[in-house]
Amino acid sequence: MNNYSNYKGMMRKIADIQYASAVLNWDQETFMPPKGATFRAQQLSTLAGIGHELATSKELGDLLNTLSTDVSLSEKEKRNIKQSLKNYNDNKKYTTEFVQELSKTISETFQSWQKAKEENNFSLYAPNLEKLVKLKREECKLLGTFAHPYDALLNQYEPGAKTADLEILFADVRSQLVAFVKKIAVKPQNKDSFMYLQYNKTKQWELGLELLKQMGYDFEAGRQDASSHPFTTNFSSQDVRVTTRINEKDLNEMIWSCIHEGGHALYEQGLPAEEYGLPSGEYVSLGIHESQSRLWENNVGRSLGYWKNNFKLLQNTFSESLKGINFEDFYKAMNIVKPSLIRTSADELTYHFHVLIRFEIEKALIEGSIEVKDLPNYWNSKYKEYLGLDVPSDSKGVLQDIHWSHGSFGYFPTYSLGSFYAAQFFAQAKKEIKGLESEIEKGNTKPLLDWLREKVHRHGKFYSAEELCIAISGEKLNFKYFMDYAAAKYTALYNL
Amino acid sequence: MNNYSNYKGMMRKIADIQYASAVLNWDQETFMPPKGATFRAQQLSTLAGIGHELATSKELGDLLNTLSTDVSLSEKEKRNIKQSLKNYNDNKKYTTEFVQELSKTISETFQSWQKAKEENNFSLYAPNLEKLVKLKREECKLLGTFAHPYDALLNQYEPGAKTADLEILFADVRSQLVAFVKKIAVKPQNKDSFMYLQYNKTKQWELGLELLKQMGYDFEAGRQDASSHPFTTNFSSQDVRVTTRINEKDLNEMIWSCIHEGGHALYEQGLPAEEYGLPSGEYVSLGIHESQSRLWENNVGRSLGYWKNNFKLLQNTFSESLKGINFEDFYKAMNIVKPSLIRTSADELTYHFHVLIRFEIEKALIEGSIEVKDLPNYWNSKYKEYLGLDVPSDSKGVLQDIHWSHGSFGYFPTYSLGSFYAAQFFAQAKKEIKGLESEIEKGNTKPLLDWLREKVHRHGKFYSAEELCIAISGEKLNFKYFMDYAAAKYTALYNL
Repeated sequence: MNNYSNYKGMMRKIADIQYASAVLNWDQETFMPPKGATFRAQQLSTLAGIGHELATSKELGDLLNTLSTDVSLSEKEKRNIKQSLKNYNDNKKYTTEFVQELSKTISETFQSWQKAKEENNFSLYAPNLEKLVKLKREECKLLGTFAHPYDALLNQYEPGAKTADLEILFADVRSQLVAFVKKIAVKPQNKDSFMYLQYNKTKQWELGLELLKQMGYDFEAGRQDASSHPFTTNFSSQDVRVTTRINEKDLNEMIWSCIHEGGHALYEQGLPAEEYGLPSGEYVSLGIHESQSRLWENNVGRSLGYWKNNFKLLQNTFSESLKGINFEDFYKAMNIVKPSLIRTSADELTYHFHVLIRFEIEKALIEGSIEVKDLPNYWNSKYKEYLGLDVPSDSKGVLQDIHWSHGSFGYFPTYSLGSFYAAQFFAQAKKEIKGLESEIEKGNTKPLLDWLREKVHRHGKFYSAEELCIAISGEKLNFKYFMDYAAAKYTALYNL
Repeated sequence: MNNYSNYKGMMRKIADIQYASAVLNWDQETFMPPKGATFRAQQLSTLAGIGHELATSKELGDLLNTLSTDVSLSEKEKRNIKQSLKNYNDNKKYTTEFVQELSKTISETFQSWQKAKEENNFSLYAPNLEKLVKLKREECKLLGTFAHPYDALLNQYEPGAKTADLEILFADVRSQLVAFVKKIAVKPQNKDSFMYLQYNKTKQWELGLELLKQMGYDFEAGRQDASSHPFTTNFSSQDVRVTTRINEKDLNEMIWSCIHEGGHALYEQGLPAEEYGLPSGEYVSLGIHESQSRLWENNVGRSLGYWKNNFKLLQNTFSESLKGINFEDFYKAMNIVKPSLIRTSADELTYHFHVLIRFEIEKALIEGSIEVKDLPNYWNSKYKEYLGLDVPSDSKGVLQDIHWSHGSFGYFPTYSLGSFYAAQFFAQAKKEIKGLESEIEKGNTKPLLDWLREKVHRHGKFYSAEELCIAISGEKLNFKYFMDYAAAKYTALYNL
């Protein structure tokens, strides 16, 4: 075997361990009985340890260093080696002690967060979170020198992202989106009370499957299950699973989680199977991943045309609750803009204020300009500032998200990046796909999927997020596309 | 940390890998989408390789050798070390090449078996099976010198079992059980056509859950799912899962698989969680495991008293199909003795002829006194001899079982051992538990479960199968208990 084949073999082995962990995690969220939790945590920790050992082995390092100067490799192979060497060097920065300490602290913090949220008692969570933030600050240091320490964390989710760039981007969000939402706020509100009548669980489940099928999700290479928080996971591009959550009193939850997770899943199913375990078989970044889910959820799913085709199905399924409603009423209802407390159920405009707030808080926490004890007040003042809302309880405030309890700092910004990339990509798709919107109106999203496969999915991680964005649209990420999309859509919806 | 703690840590890590594989296998049998199969096989193979490396590491070997002379250990600790050292030495006999060759051959043989069974074409399977038998013969040699080469394989499932002992046991089966079944055959047959009417799937599912609940199966530490072949698996004693198969035209399948797998699961749930990964936290042997499933299935589940309590529930659930049937009719129907072609649906008496046939064939194959090409004829002549049946096709004959395609030679005898241990243990339970049968008639199986927990489950692998049998009943396995049970029960059922 030559060096490159050896490298592939080692990477596949590491991927096997990581995907085995993913199966255990999926099971934990979907089917695992409650008493299974303790040993499951131990099993996951063992797998993580073995994965880390393999990913930092001298053998792999030597091989990567040798291959990094091999001029006979193809461009794709060279990029794989470059990516893998970067990951290898990053992984090597972590001592086993640090990894174990972090893993243990995360377990404890997560448990205390669950309890704190349930009992609306931030103080149950604060001591663990303090310890975790301290470790994350250390992590920034051990990862090396960056323009801003928060960059080190951002890069774990969005390689190449910079705090400075995000500050500029979020300044646009502040100046343009805040003003735009204010214009909407003074207009009469659209009606959506019918979304909260009775919607049968089994029928919702079946409808979700139908929506996934329409999108082109391959059920031979995936399945849908129920979980308390919807997610997508994969164990190869040939086994990509989604979950959804059904609320019989709120039709929104199932619809948006199905289409959103379906978008993530289409990306994973579209990655090249033969590149399993290699960067060329992986997604670019969480921002690009989110661009795929948001494009389907917002640009497609929340469009008038999409429901022109699908509303009949919906109305036939829930004839009682949707009696007398037409597809335009439905379109208006699903696009209500209204400041709210909970990020996951926010509309597609005010959603970004939720992210902005978290970005500002995380940055300050990692810099050390605020401390964990300041979080509730800081959170509440930001919600007053950007959303005009009084936060009635920490459970509906600073305790609402799981992310920090998992040590995920730097993750939230990728949600906004995803929406903005989605708008930019979708604008390009409309230019390149003849009659795209009329095809969607007819229920034909295949041209769009084919385009995404061609432009995004098949490349794996060959391009960075920025390179990919330029390759697709001819320019870097530009917030203008999102604002243009929002302006056109909501001007019509609210008669601005 | 002292040596014994180190040993525990290493064993837990190996167990973590094995249980992670078990989760992947469980998923494969229950939920995995079809396209997931290829990468799943690779992931399982990687985990198996890592598990084998850990289980044969020099570090573990040195530690075990040191601990094996440590007189300060408790009796339980000593036995753990002895068991683990034996396993270690056995594992060391396998070269990585042999393990890989075996694993590859099994995958190919399994695939060809599926196809051969589907197409009723033994020749599609024969070349792979020949290769596999050759490897299993080699395996016997590399495992060392035994009185009979087949002993080496038997021991993988039933540590300590000897071909010579099984020959004596099965000679009893032949002389006593064959004669007994002949006495039944001339009597008028009982009726069971109502078992094959319409039985709603969902109702069967719910009933199965209820039967498991009654037995004391802990749903906080387990769950039931559907699979094409019912099985029990566990990822610790705190997460023990069962599967069942439902046939709307045959009430037997769900009932017996639920109670049977429930028996296996109660054993696993009863193993001491704090001994996770150690012999003291594991089952004794497949024979003892099967004793737990058979005891619940046959000695409890197929008894008159059990249905005296449960028949009302059954009849209320399936009022139409069971109209006019009473619990005694039902008891007779579920205990019909009649030679049949398929092992898995055989009655509890002729079942052992199926095992006997496989035992004789496996022994001959491993000795080399027959070859794979002879199997169909040999099989058919044995079915004629012991069951008086003409085998109409290889699919209903030599191709019916999955075991050989998995390389599992030496597994079948544990099914009979299990039934015989069950009869012996149940006879003892009746002596020791006051009013056991009347408690079962009242639907109270808790005293029985408590007794099994005390006598069998809590000990893990502290005792060998033979030691355990003596500890419980005062003597070694004795076929007499099974014959006594059969004689009493079927003399009444068939007016012999």
